[in-house]
Amino acid sequence: MGRWEPDARDRLKRAAVDLFVEQGFAETTVPQITARAGLTTRTFFRHFADKREVLFVGEEEFPALVAKMMADAPPSLGPMAVILHGLRTIAEGVFEGQREYMRTRRSVIQTDAGLRERELWKLSALSKAIREGFLERGVDDLTATLAAQAGVTAFGVGITRWLDQDDGSLAEIVRDTLDALRTVLAEPVE
Amino acid sequence: MGRWEPDARDRLKRAAVDLFVEQGFAETTVPQITARAGLTTRTFFRHFADKREVLFVGEEEFPALVAKMMADAPPSLGPMAVILHGLRTIAEGVFEGQREYMRTRRSVIQTDAGLRERELWKLSALSKAIREGFLERGVDDLTATLAAQAGVTAFGVGITRWLDQDDGSLAEIVRDTLDALRTVLAEPVE
Repeated sequence: MGRWEPDARDRLKRAAVDLFVEQGFAETTVPQITARAGLTTRTFFRHFADKREVLFVGEEEFPALVAKMMADAPPSLGPMAVILHGLRTIAEGVFEGQREYMRTRRSVIQTDAGLRERELWKLSALSKAIREGFLERGVDDLTATLAAQAGVTAFGVGITRWLDQDDGSLAEIVRDTLDALRTVLAEPVE
Repeated sequence: MGRWEPDARDRLKRAAVDLFVEQGFAETTVPQITARAGLTTRTFFRHFADKREVLFVGEEEFPALVAKMMADAPPSLGPMAVILHGLRTIAEGVFEGQREYMRTRRSVIQTDAGLRERELWKLSALSKAIREGFLERGVDDLTATLAAQAGVTAFGVGITRWLDQDDGSLAEIVRDTLDALRTVLAEPVE
């Protein structure tokens, strides 16, 4: 192995998740992760602030990605069309092919209250980024907030359904989930 | 003051929130709170696990309250009607008359990441309780999950709007927010 480890981040991530599954998140230390990956702790801390961040790596880029996608969407598109287009792009560009890894990741997150809170925080940050993207597009505050929340709901519930089954792409399932949300909300109330 | 302090919980809560506002949440200690309230730390810990719980007291009863309300709703009511009825009951029974306190509470929560995460966690627990209530009513899993999320969105966004303005009851604003969510979701997407 040379001085540069172009695949170091992926190797550390795989080693960490394997250890979290084998022996528990709380019980796993950074030296154990780096020993398993055959790398140094110094390399670990070049890539991750701590072991928790291994499970959330890349997600800090989501808000900027959302902002760019929303700025690039044709001005004629209404909020729900923007949501639908954005969710499909993220589903296909970021998650497709990751179902097995995402299942393992979920099983780890479910074991730890701090990880579950971090996961909720991520969805909340995503909602804020979408809301701001709508405000930039000139959408009113209430519509921006509600369309963002609806998008995050479709995305969060869609991911859960995708991980619970073997068929269907995430993009299809998220679309189906958004359609189901529309149907539920369309029910007359009185 | 007698041996029993029937209003101890309220006095401790008020003293704590006043101190959080005056000097910051992190800087406030339990002995400072009890000194302000004229009570002992022993009394404090009979009512609260820690200073954080002062801001969330009573909310541990929400899931059971939700379960009861949903079990009591007429079987003929569809999911959105159940949501609407439940939100109105909670708005009127729990929050009406609390706008000033809730504004102060929000200003404290916004200053601390741990408190913000706890607040998100509470909404997530509420969503789970509503979903379970729907499953008990024989609603399918996807509809139960999505109706619960829609209800929590309307409630969370409604509370924010209620705190941001001086007019209107929470029940009216939550109803208006749910209507707005329905309108946003009804937009044709293609």
